[in-house]
Amino acid sequence: MTITRGFQKHPAGSVLVEFGDTKVLCAASATEGVPRWRKGSGLGWLTAEYAMLPSATDTRGERESVKGRIGGRTHEISRLIGRSLRACIDLAALGENTIALDCDVLQADGGTRTAAITGAYVALADAVTWLGAHRRLSDPKPLSCAVAAVSVGVVDGRVRLDLPYAEDSRAEVDANVVATDAGTLIEVQGTGEGATFTRRTLDAMLDVSMAGIRQLVEIQAAALAAPYPGELPAAAS
Amino acid sequence: MTITRGFQKHPAGSVLVEFGDTKVLCAASATEGVPRWRKGSGLGWLTAEYAMLPSATDTRGERESVKGRIGGRTHEISRLIGRSLRACIDLAALGENTIALDCDVLQADGGTRTAAITGAYVALADAVTWLGAHRRLSDPKPLSCAVAAVSVGVVDGRVRLDLPYAEDSRAEVDANVVATDAGTLIEVQGTGEGATFTRRTLDAMLDVSMAGIRQLVEIQAAALAAPYPGELPAAAS
Amino acid sequence: MTITRGFQKHPAGSVLVEFGDTKVLCAASATEGVPRWRKGSGLGWLTAEYAMLPSATDTRGERESVKGRIGGRTHEISRLIGRSLRACIDLAALGENTIALDCDVLQADGGTRTAAITGAYVALADAVTWLGAHRRLSDPKPLSCAVAAVSVGVVDGRVRLDLPYAEDSRAEVDANVVATDAGTLIEVQGTGEGATFTRRTLDAMLDVSMAGIRQLVEIQAAALAAPYPGELPAAAS
Amino acid sequence: MTITRGFQKHPAGSVLVEFGDTKVLCAASATEGVPRWRKGSGLGWLTAEYAMLPSATDTRGERESVKGRIGGRTHEISRLIGRSLRACIDLAALGENTIALDCDVLQADGGTRTAAITGAYVALADAVTWLGAHRRLSDPKPLSCAVAAVSVGVVDGRVRLDLPYAEDSRAEVDANVVATDAGTLIEVQGTGEGATFTRRTLDAMLDVSMAGIRQLVEIQAAALAAPYPGELPAAAS
Amino acid sequence: MTITRGFQKHPAGSVLVEFGDTKVLCAASATEGVPRWRKGSGLGWLTAEYAMLPSATDTRGERESVKGRIGGRTHEISRLIGRSLRACIDLAALGENTIALDCDVLQADGGTRTAAITGAYVALADAVTWLGAHRRLSDPKPLSCAVAAVSVGVVDGRVRLDLPYAEDSRAEVDANVVATDAGTLIEVQGTGEGATFTRRTLDAMLDVSMAGIRQLVEIQAAALAAPYPGELPAAAS
Amino acid sequence: MTITRGFQKHPAGSVLVEFGDTKVLCAASATEGVPRWRKGSGLGWLTAEYAMLPSATDTRGERESVKGRIGGRTHEISRLIGRSLRACIDLAALGENTIALDCDVLQADGGTRTAAITGAYVALADAVTWLGAHRRLSDPKPLSCAVAAVSVGVVDGRVRLDLPYAEDSRAEVDANVVATDAGTLIEVQGTGEGATFTRRTLDAMLDVSMAGIRQLVEIQAAALAAPYPGELPAAAS
Repeated sequence: MTITRGFQKHPAGSVLVEFGDTKVLCAASATEGVPRWRKGSGLGWLTAEYAMLPSATDTRGERESVKGRIGGRTHEISRLIGRSLRACIDLAALGENTIALDCDVLQADGGTRTAAITGAYVALADAVTWLGAHRRLSDPKPLSCAVAAVSVGVVDGRVRLDLPYAEDSRAEVDANVVATDAGTLIEVQGTGEGATFTRRTLDAMLDVSMAGIRQLVEIQAAALAAPYPGELPAAAS
Repeated sequence: MTITRGFQKHPAGSVLVEFGDTKVLCAASATEGVPRWRKGSGLGWLTAEYAMLPSATDTRGERESVKGRIGGRTHEISRLIGRSLRACIDLAALGENTIALDCDVLQADGGTRTAAITGAYVALADAVTWLGAHRRLSDPKPLSCAVAAVSVGVVDGRVRLDLPYAEDSRAEVDANVVATDAGTLIEVQGTGEGATFTRRTLDAMLDVSMAGIRQLVEIQAAALAAPYPGELPAAAS
Repeated sequence: MTITRGFQKHPAGSVLVEFGDTKVLCAASATEGVPRWRKGSGLGWLTAEYAMLPSATDTRGERESVKGRIGGRTHEISRLIGRSLRACIDLAALGENTIALDCDVLQADGGTRTAAITGAYVALADAVTWLGAHRRLSDPKPLSCAVAAVSVGVVDGRVRLDLPYAEDSRAEVDANVVATDAGTLIEVQGTGEGATFTRRTLDAMLDVSMAGIRQLVEIQAAALAAPYPGELPAAAS
Repeated sequence: MTITRGFQKHPAGSVLVEFGDTKVLCAASATEGVPRWRKGSGLGWLTAEYAMLPSATDTRGERESVKGRIGGRTHEISRLIGRSLRACIDLAALGENTIALDCDVLQADGGTRTAAITGAYVALADAVTWLGAHRRLSDPKPLSCAVAAVSVGVVDGRVRLDLPYAEDSRAEVDANVVATDAGTLIEVQGTGEGATFTRRTLDAMLDVSMAGIRQLVEIQAAALAAPYPGELPAAAS
Repeated sequence: MTITRGFQKHPAGSVLVEFGDTKVLCAASATEGVPRWRKGSGLGWLTAEYAMLPSATDTRGERESVKGRIGGRTHEISRLIGRSLRACIDLAALGENTIALDCDVLQADGGTRTAAITGAYVALADAVTWLGAHRRLSDPKPLSCAVAAVSVGVVDGRVRLDLPYAEDSRAEVDANVVATDAGTLIEVQGTGEGATFTRRTLDAMLDVSMAGIRQLVEIQAAALAAPYPGELPAAAS
Repeated sequence: MTITRGFQKHPAGSVLVEFGDTKVLCAASATEGVPRWRKGSGLGWLTAEYAMLPSATDTRGERESVKGRIGGRTHEISRLIGRSLRACIDLAALGENTIALDCDVLQADGGTRTAAITGAYVALADAVTWLGAHRRLSDPKPLSCAVAAVSVGVVDGRVRLDLPYAEDSRAEVDANVVATDAGTLIEVQGTGEGATFTRRTLDAMLDVSMAGIRQLVEIQAAALAAPYPGELPAAAS
């Protein structure tokens, strides 16, 4: 997995995640204020939207804006990303700011939703740095942990991490696991694809997942060790 | 949990599931033929749609048909129900028939998606009986297992089965488990709600879930022990 | 016609109307406040929405939320129900409260719109009782009359009340009549279905309708003779 | 009422109806073929769409195409026009042709729906003439009667025909009546506007309506006495 | 080109433009206030919407309100009309009023967008007169110039002004030019239709266009020489 | 301007165009067959869709798929790109193949539509190479010319090429010019932004534009001098 910070100049955080042939652009845009129903609460808000470019897939996909409606898969993944990242942020510390995470898949070859979550965390961390430098946080450390995600599949009876699309599409069981750098779980989604599975298989998938997440968390930390990839106010620190 | 078969007269299977104060109407409508992309394959198809009456919830909900779009939650649950029930049916045995499962929540008090899956299985079993009696199946036994689902939550540190809404909304961790009468898993979805959780907690939630599912499977079997709640062709058996 | 009050626990009024094989769930939800354009007027508001479950009809209907638009028939009936019930309520006496009537057809076999109106009146009466018990009415008696509705059709030259779907669909003339317990009219809609009709036929249809409405008004009154089917504040009366 | 035939050059029938300050453009476009579900039946089809220009009303209305959805009132009137005109045409005689009636209100001052029906009949008659001249009818006389419509209202206790908007909006009772040149009824819609009404009032409204319709039918006949306002094939007769 | 002012009674300006067989109804509706994002700025606003009646074209077009979405061509022309007319109005002088221009094509035979712009200017001039007479302008002369538009095409190598549809559809190059009575340009759009073109051709098209626009500006001036076609407050001047 | 070919692996042509701070991803996806209305004609088809990522702009933009409708600006630019590229391709030589051009703006800083056209030409050239190598063209050279585009603006009275957003937004006149490598024009769009302009200014803008386009055409040619950036069938030439 390669993480390129500062891919775009406008959002407070912008990360290109590359993972095998999968490429996802994760942007974290910070705006002052919160949705109306939340005003005056002192709490911030974080939302996420996931989408795929029509040209990202093997066969060109129809554009959802042209269809005039968002498909169920898109809705489901957008909600998963939002839930996952809200687990690591203290919305009171964020203050009345809104962070919008946009995860746009430029190229898809399996594992786009987990790559999106992993990249979105880095973009979010940059956006929080940006907000802090602009003195807009209520508390200087709103992030309580790092968040990363992997997918695992069972192919021909063997548990395999982050399958490319060709193998993933023939997996018997499929799971997405979102976890923290402390090794705790945020979300577990395991699905039999036309097959059922035992708890033993679930356990094996979780073991492989947690090992994968430990690696990702290190790559995230290494990427975030470099300074913020843009300009910040001089007296910010 | 109470299961009333034959609640509606038109669909091939129609079941009212009552579970605490939650009431879901599950209908399985069988139509000849399959969607265009599947024609000539010899395989059947099964879809599911979940919805809530505006009057089902504590505060009246806006009607999605009036809004002109389906929300993410509705999409997500509809997809879950479809995936779960497709796991128990052999689509080749079904022949080129389509079964549409409609799960309409008449009253909501927690656990509507799991009640919907549990009831949908019984409606599906009735629809399969109806298709068999009308000699429209390719193979007489398309159902390979029974399917039931429970939700579990952790409240105040304790794992609890099928929480009513008031308690569910303050659960720290929440899981939905779909499993078969053979004790194998179809879907596991565990989510930290503003909190993370350990694998030990996940294991405890799975233990409680599997016990709950064993009970539901018995209630389903008891309900299905009675004859088909409608008219079938005389020479059908 | 059977009227079951208190079918759902959340709305202030909730009635299941059964009429032949037609079953309609009528809910009256009361919320504080009125739409923006009416604020400060001192007047309340009443709206109605009608819908059919996909599984309610002989052949499964497509869900309007999935189609993304409401059909003309649905619009027309929703407007009819709203107009009919607004005729019996004094919106000044209601105070700045909104009552939303939801009429959801669980099973359809002719006469769903007239069953919906007849049931909606009972749900509305319960919602008004609930509002009164919570001391939210401007005047204790906002309902000026009872409202009921019937459909009549001419089949093979004979006027018939409340035809089931199979006969209704071959009626030459069709009328819906909404009237009060005082015998006055609220709405008359007579339509030739591929045929025209004389005033004599219209008169005969009205005679039969008014007799039918007298019966329905008695059934409504009998149903409402029982106490409110839910909890009310102790000191309410 | 003024009827100008041949207002537009493209549709087979095109009529501008002026009635007080109300102006409606009624076009009847004939196309070969019928909707898919009707193919091979030998029967034709007739549809109607009603709309208002944003500039037609006292206060500018929002365009329904911009809103992205058709309102209930528009739906209701479109359906009424279609039903009314289908009552006078023999769809077998029409052959597998489709006639689309477009009634676009250029200026509104009460009675737009009844003016639309009255004008649409004349446009339809022209379209039928055009189809006949092009030898596309299955039978030379598909129209069995003329159709006209009026609105009546009760203002200050008196029954009045075709009220302008300012008076119509304070009518206590409002009715639209569609009838034939033979004096038979096609559609009767009577509505109490915040008031109820007696059968005696309904009878009075019908008397006034039938007199009004007799006049309109004469105006239609006079307008149609002139030759077809466009070019027809030379050898057509 | 024929310009009929005062075609509709409700809008402050209403003009029917006839140009060959093309007929466009241009209405300018003035309302007090501006969109929310502009409030308090002291500036007015001007928008434009273009649409075609289904019956306006040779083959009946589907209604955009029925399709539920506005097509690209409609969007493009609406934007062009708005931009063109905003070029001639001083929005500070207009004061916080909004003028909505509605250009509805009653009959189409080429050049509908340029006819719409030319007519919209006259409707706008009338709306400004109306606003002035009602003492609602910030400055008495908000219009800085007249605006007219022509289309030119190259057919068989020759530049031709305002082609009817049949010839326009086989033009190799097509241009729309919007200009002022002072001979300056507001918008130039030249497009090769399956062909490219030289600057010499563009120059020839502009020469022909400017001559055409000089004529239109005279026709506009002549039309506006007559008094305002409606009632104005007595003491207005 | 930097042109990176082969940015994505799935589409037959995929180009990242960078131009100042503007970055546009242009993909050309080739699929067998043409839309239904074109089948059997022997002609191919080319469409284009333009869109902006929400994170591309200074202030985050709302996603059009979430809004459920495509805005006028998006529609207008998509149509411009399609028209521009259809001018350089012989659809008979293309055979019954469809090429979909997707121009997705990753970062916006002025001139996104012209950058999109310039990049789309290179992606299209690659897609044509790919189709040729797969022996799917009717004629080996469907491209008749190269296509490039620039924007010019007048700021403080001076004509300037390809302004960044900050300057472009205060331009008095703005033009987009699409032209070929032979120096002929495909599209000219000049607009006064709250100001009018003379033909002399238009001429000056065209002079500057044509010089700019000559440079772009060289950069395109240089980029296309390298071999196809992906795998092609071995025996393809």
